[in-house]
Amino acid sequence: MRLYDSGRAPNPRRVRIFLAEKGVSIPLVPVDIGAGEHRTPAFTALNPFQRTPVLELDDGTAIAESIAICRYVEELHPAPALFGTGARERALVEMWQRRLEFGLLGAIAAAFRHSHPAMAAWEVPQVPAWGEANRPKVTEFLALLDRHLADGRPFVAGDGFSVADITGLVALDFLKPARIAVPDELAAVRRWHEALRARPSAEA
Amino acid sequence: MRLYDSGRAPNPRRVRIFLAEKGVSIPLVPVDIGAGEHRTPAFTALNPFQRTPVLELDDGTAIAESIAICRYVEELHPAPALFGTGARERALVEMWQRRLEFGLLGAIAAAFRHSHPAMAAWEVPQVPAWGEANRPKVTEFLALLDRHLADGRPFVAGDGFSVADITGLVALDFLKPARIAVPDELAAVRRWHEALRARPSAEA
Repeated sequence: MRLYDSGRAPNPRRVRIFLAEKGVSIPLVPVDIGAGEHRTPAFTALNPFQRTPVLELDDGTAIAESIAICRYVEELHPAPALFGTGARERALVEMWQRRLEFGLLGAIAAAFRHSHPAMAAWEVPQVPAWGEANRPKVTEFLALLDRHLADGRPFVAGDGFSVADITGLVALDFLKPARIAVPDELAAVRRWHEALRARPSAEA
Repeated sequence: MRLYDSGRAPNPRRVRIFLAEKGVSIPLVPVDIGAGEHRTPAFTALNPFQRTPVLELDDGTAIAESIAICRYVEELHPAPALFGTGARERALVEMWQRRLEFGLLGAIAAAFRHSHPAMAAWEVPQVPAWGEANRPKVTEFLALLDRHLADGRPFVAGDGFSVADITGLVALDFLKPARIAVPDELAAVRRWHEALRARPSAEA
């Protein structure tokens, strides 16, 4: 089994944090996106959508999509459970993972990719008005998230740390390159972010 | 248990098709989005993100996000398995569900919401350039999908019908309001779409 990985990008990082929380090590194959290695014929055969990360199984099966990879690892290594325990908690983890992925990480990524000059060669066509339209979406999401976290809960969904927290951490860390600040008054979001950053897995 | 549902919109429909395939019936509570019922205080208390569908459990827990609802139903009613069987197949179903959701349904929805005059009041700000930018993304995705289906496989992932097929059906049906046609040469996509539309669940 090997994991095709690309340094600092948010999605590969989600999988590395997940593996660190599991205490699982998988050999990494670096894919240099800056050098276009995700567009080579060999990588395209693995993932026609030309995205990282990809987990290649020993039988040659290629699993793309960060969350699909994390679920596969969860099945091989069930403890600690990072998708929740029991039907109800698993549903709430899935709900928050998806909210954070689409509503926060997706909106931050759109703001970044459509407004940063360095992304003009990658996001074609770059639509600056769409980048701008996403900034208030990010702020609105953060305000709702702050209300959810305001009761002091340590994790965004369920009783324990989960994959939803991982998506939240990666999203909040991605605010900086997107040049979006967490408003000062959102104390609960700041507390949660700091707690997630303090975990050893955040270095992954 | 009750399901807050909104007629023709793609996400509520995904859940209804899922329930039909399971042979499970859950009482529906209609939420008229056209009349703004998703923004009432009562519905906002259920889902602060003001989106349908929402599954309300008997203990008051509210599960939003279509796929989170489907997973919860899968846990209560495991047969027929609609998220795949075994770790490998479940990972492939998850991969294709996500590809179809982001790469196809998401791109079609963006094209529709940002270019259809009737959506100007709903998608604020409407960014026509972003709507246009998504049209070639849809066509590129369909071409890759066609290659994947070209070996005649009946389902997009794994050996059986799955939630990934449901997302694919809802996405392809959404091409019409978005005024995007499946190119004639993509025979495998057309075949797959016709087969999915012929299932009784497509009426849900």
